[in-house]
Amino acid sequence: MTLVLFSAPDSVWDEYRDVLPRAIARAGVEARIIRDDALTDPTEVDYIVYAPSSRLKDFTPFTRLKAVLNLWAGVEAIAPNPTLKAPLARMVDYGLTEGMVEWCVGHTLRHHLGMDQDIRRNDAEWHPHVPPLARWRNITVLGLGALGEAVARALVDLNFRVTGWSRRQKDIGGICCLSGDDGLREALSSAEILILLLPLTDNTRDLMDRNRLALLPKGACVINPGRGPLIVDEDLIDALDSGQIAHATLDVFRTEPLPPEHPFWAHDGVTVTPHIASDTRPQSAADVVAENLRRGETGEPFLHLVDRSAGY
Amino acid sequence: MTLVLFSAPDSVWDEYRDVLPRAIARAGVEARIIRDDALTDPTEVDYIVYAPSSRLKDFTPFTRLKAVLNLWAGVEAIAPNPTLKAPLARMVDYGLTEGMVEWCVGHTLRHHLGMDQDIRRNDAEWHPHVPPLARWRNITVLGLGALGEAVARALVDLNFRVTGWSRRQKDIGGICCLSGDDGLREALSSAEILILLLPLTDNTRDLMDRNRLALLPKGACVINPGRGPLIVDEDLIDALDSGQIAHATLDVFRTEPLPPEHPFWAHDGVTVTPHIASDTRPQSAADVVAENLRRGETGEPFLHLVDRSAGY
Ligand SMILES: NC(=O)c1ccc[n+]([C@@H]2O[C@H](COP(=O)([O-])OP(=O)(O)OC[C@H]3O[C@@H](n4cnc5c(N)ncnc54)[C@H](OP(=O)(O)O)[C@@H]3O)[C@@H](O)[C@H]2O)c1
Ligand SMILES: NC(=O)c1ccc[n+]([C@@H]2O[C@H](COP(=O)([O-])OP(=O)(O)OC[C@H]3O[C@@H](n4cnc5c(N)ncnc54)[C@H](OP(=O)(O)O)[C@@H]3O)[C@@H](O)[C@H]2O)c1
Repeated sequence: MTLVLFSAPDSVWDEYRDVLPRAIARAGVEARIIRDDALTDPTEVDYIVYAPSSRLKDFTPFTRLKAVLNLWAGVEAIAPNPTLKAPLARMVDYGLTEGMVEWCVGHTLRHHLGMDQDIRRNDAEWHPHVPPLARWRNITVLGLGALGEAVARALVDLNFRVTGWSRRQKDIGGICCLSGDDGLREALSSAEILILLLPLTDNTRDLMDRNRLALLPKGACVINPGRGPLIVDEDLIDALDSGQIAHATLDVFRTEPLPPEHPFWAHDGVTVTPHIASDTRPQSAADVVAENLRRGETGEPFLHLVDRSAGY
Repeated sequence: MTLVLFSAPDSVWDEYRDVLPRAIARAGVEARIIRDDALTDPTEVDYIVYAPSSRLKDFTPFTRLKAVLNLWAGVEAIAPNPTLKAPLARMVDYGLTEGMVEWCVGHTLRHHLGMDQDIRRNDAEWHPHVPPLARWRNITVLGLGALGEAVARALVDLNFRVTGWSRRQKDIGGICCLSGDDGLREALSSAEILILLLPLTDNTRDLMDRNRLALLPKGACVINPGRGPLIVDEDLIDALDSGQIAHATLDVFRTEPLPPEHPFWAHDGVTVTPHIASDTRPQSAADVVAENLRRGETGEPFLHLVDRSAGY
């Protein structure tokens, strides 16, 4: 019987306690799931289902571990852990992707159409403002992974002119794909709206500093559903104050929840959303976990493996 | 030499004075364009290019008229005119369609995601609110014409569950198509978000009155880029006040500009946009007019003819 340690706080367990055993049974795997407090012998554990908020940080005692299956898409809390030797898989889930597409397309259209002037208006004056067509609007997406590529494709379907940037050069129909330092400069220089869908790694931390923000066309909008430390907060605020950046819509922050005294809250040019761009849906995520358990037990390759040397 | 009367105010002429003669020349038509004040003999006019704001209301003197080419998509200002005997064509233009799709999809996603609570927030509190996925959200589009069908298709591409309603029964892949009175009841009963893209005719005026608003699920949102009189203003306000309707985003009104004293301006549940959902773009619209002139001169059937008996 396969032993699975579900290493996550109670609030996460509550969401999975019903759906995960059923998904595992559907996948044809015979497994027993235990939680951290029931763990007596780490050497008996075959798999760990892991939430980034888990207290487990030392994987050394888990000598027989076949894989860690992360419940989130972002793995920056576990990928650099030197005690983990087993394969690490992350979450890729249709619900996560669709939710992210909806959030990113929605906020892109909001900025494209200049909706805020109608939503926040408090006079009774008729001020027609007709935006350009999407086909005349340049959007750049940094990161063309599971999420970034899906977002870029959805924007192309709405006729936007889309540029994407990734570590390895891509070739995706309808999208101007760039990579490397020169590619980043080019991608930023045209971005009327910039969307950050990079993972947090040593190479992406502080990427959007004052120099790179200055490469954007004046009055650009920044949308960040990636990770907070991709942007240098003070540099963004300076760029907003100078008018270089017209607006920033931020879903992720260096500290979450965003502390009440953080200047983003009060800044007129910032929209704070509370890390809701996309959520793992237990229903579909449980199937992804179960499928990887099945693959591990039958010797097939795991899905969604993290490249530990790249950090994502 | 074909004589074309451009019957529209100066502000409209200013947008077309350069692009229209060029488009007509490109279409290979030899035409002379005159404006209302230069008109001496109505019996010499072959075509009238018409803006709804034109002062021309009596078409009787234009005995040789081959067609009236409307510069707008909506024809309610001219379709019922009994003095007009010549064919009437309306504007169908890729810019108009794309602009409408962008506006409707943007405001649909705005309501779907509950964006306003983040955009209008004035506390510094972290209140996560994760919306359902689009695939679990029912949207209804009333009117499946050039604009309604394009909007419905774009929403389907984003995974929304879309129901559409039209006068004649349609069959469009991925969309639940309904017609007739029973169809309207069914279309309204599931509509978490309702989009009005009907023309204004005797049959559609006052369509959304208190009885029909009451058929929507409680807390529905209404988006009206069609025409103001499709909705009974007082009934909408009552439905907003009772919570039956959570929000209305309105682009069109019985009187435009919307008078400063109209209660829509001050209502917290109403977003007023100043008839900007979509604009005819002179560049592409001039080509549509020129193509119809060419067709008239070569005896080919006109494009985008209005069915005068149906009123649109
Ligand atoms: N706000 C939320 O609710 C939420 C929800 C889920 C995820 N997220 C965030 O979204 C991020 C992206 O998710 P995903 O599933 O799309 O990840 P992914 O599939 O791993 O894709 C990451 C993309 O970033 C590119 N990239 C990584 N490092 C780079 C570098 N140094 N230079 C240039 N490009 C680089 C990758 O390039 P290659 O294609 O060449 O590898 C890839 O295209 C996650 O890491 C997480 O932080 C946020
Ligand atoms: N806010 C703006 O900026 C803006 C810009 C452009 C247009 N508009 C408005 O949008 C409207 C729609 O434009 P369009 O180009 O899509 O018009 P269209 O191609 O003529 O389509 C009208 C649609 O409404 C349906 N319809 C008409 N009367 C009906 C009735 N009594 N019952 C049920 N369905 C009915 C038609 O049904 P059938 O398919 O069976 O004929 C058709 O599907 C215009 O009339 C105009 O008022 C607004």
